[in-house]
Amino acid sequence: MNAALILDLFGVFFFAVSGSLLAARKGFDLVGSLLLACLVSLGGGVARDVIIGVVPVAFSNPLYLAPPLLATSLVYFLFSRLEKVSKLLVLFDAGGLALFCIVGALKAVDAGLNPVAAVLLGVTTAVGGGLLRDVVANEVPQLFNPGDIYALPAFLGAALTVVLAKLDWFNVLTGVAVAGLVFLLRVLAWRAG
Amino acid sequence: MNAALILDLFGVFFFAVSGSLLAARKGFDLVGSLLLACLVSLGGGVARDVIIGVVPVAFSNPLYLAPPLLATSLVYFLFSRLEKVSKLLVLFDAGGLALFCIVGALKAVDAGLNPVAAVLLGVTTAVGGGLLRDVVANEVPQLFNPGDIYALPAFLGAALTVVLAKLDWFNVLTGVAVAGLVFLLRVLAWRAG
Amino acid sequence: MNAALILDLFGVFFFAVSGSLLAARKGFDLVGSLLLACLVSLGGGVARDVIIGVVPVAFSNPLYLAPPLLATSLVYFLFSRLEKVSKLLVLFDAGGLALFCIVGALKAVDAGLNPVAAVLLGVTTAVGGGLLRDVVANEVPQLFNPGDIYALPAFLGAALTVVLAKLDWFNVLTGVAVAGLVFLLRVLAWRAG
Repeated sequence: MNAALILDLFGVFFFAVSGSLLAARKGFDLVGSLLLACLVSLGGGVARDVIIGVVPVAFSNPLYLAPPLLATSLVYFLFSRLEKVSKLLVLFDAGGLALFCIVGALKAVDAGLNPVAAVLLGVTTAVGGGLLRDVVANEVPQLFNPGDIYALPAFLGAALTVVLAKLDWFNVLTGVAVAGLVFLLRVLAWRAG
Repeated sequence: MNAALILDLFGVFFFAVSGSLLAARKGFDLVGSLLLACLVSLGGGVARDVIIGVVPVAFSNPLYLAPPLLATSLVYFLFSRLEKVSKLLVLFDAGGLALFCIVGALKAVDAGLNPVAAVLLGVTTAVGGGLLRDVVANEVPQLFNPGDIYALPAFLGAALTVVLAKLDWFNVLTGVAVAGLVFLLRVLAWRAG
Repeated sequence: MNAALILDLFGVFFFAVSGSLLAARKGFDLVGSLLLACLVSLGGGVARDVIIGVVPVAFSNPLYLAPPLLATSLVYFLFSRLEKVSKLLVLFDAGGLALFCIVGALKAVDAGLNPVAAVLLGVTTAVGGGLLRDVVANEVPQLFNPGDIYALPAFLGAALTVVLAKLDWFNVLTGVAVAGLVFLLRVLAWRAG
């Protein structure tokens, strides 16, 4: 397992938890929770892979189904009676955002897209799943919440990743640093908003 | 015309009727009814074909436009003044679900996807169109209706199809049996819900 | 730059303005406005290119990011305090519709799709972005507004484009004529509705 795969799987897990938490808040049952977890955690990556013209990893690698299954079970048995669901949702969503903007940008660079397109694909991957989650659950997308900064950290993370990849400086250490920065900015923006 | 094509066209027709019925309930006009019928009946299959990397059949085979045209006309002239629209909608939706989980799983096996991915693609194909229909018409997706079982029959149908295909036992007879089982389970679940 | 590219970029600009205007009406901030402008102006074309199996132009050509950036800035600094936002939105949306049905149909013919599929792809490209815009912003899609004619002009424009392309009569002059006709029909339909 290489670094990008591990980052991707953690991102899938974080977004899956956010989907299951929203499902809990909306009163969906266990199957609905699993489906929303799959949609949000795999949707952005499916869009990314379809755009660069490869079979989506969610369909070529069965490993990708483990995080939504795990996340749904965890949320169902542990978190569903918690009151702080909204806060947890934002934290896990921020974790997914931080990892997906990096993985999306990396895959775009590998697929030979130009740097501008690579940044755009990183942002698309990062915000796509959450947008699907909110639209399907009939919420106003977090993405469009005025006074809250959602897309800018993902943009910054994707841009840094493309620069690091082009300079051949991208590795586990710099990758984790970028992810941490994006997560921090997103959470700070949410607390200030 | 092979068996998969015929099953697919019937599935398209059933979903198209469900789209036109929802359009009738929402007060859309004839063009809106046709568009919603196209979206629900062709959307799941377009997603399926894009994921496995082929030109969607809805765009490569003009025959696929016949079911939505037929469904829209039928609903407009026959059903639009009926009161039992919701019940009919569920029945036709169940018919589409039963056929699409089979066709989606079969196409995935043919495209060389692994068995887990084939089941996932069958479910995606089966629930995708209905999800689009409900989201676009601003309804809470049936898929997430707690107390109602929607995705599990499609999951079962896709799994049975993959097993039958792998054992080389899939034919018109076993296909119709699986479709009947999925339809029955979905309708029973709805009546019990 | 060939004629199709120029038509496409103008279409992107018109739809981007419609997205930013809707964002202004919904009270989204500048980033939300840019994201909605990108979604509506690039979404239809991304769907079109994914369907015909090429890397979407929005990702392969950075030029495509200029119209949404320009549109968002213009709307933010000029139009956001205007009261006639709804009227302007319809006019710019009609402009995008008129150009996208042509470009979508042309690209489909170039990709070797059959004439019926080319018309369908033209309509999909033209109505896709606006549908995404309205669904994401939680509005009833204009497309389904009874008494308003939205998809028919796009259908006519795509059909005329396919006929002209097949007869080898498509050029800047006939293209502009078709676009003008679609725009006029759409605006007249809206005024009458």
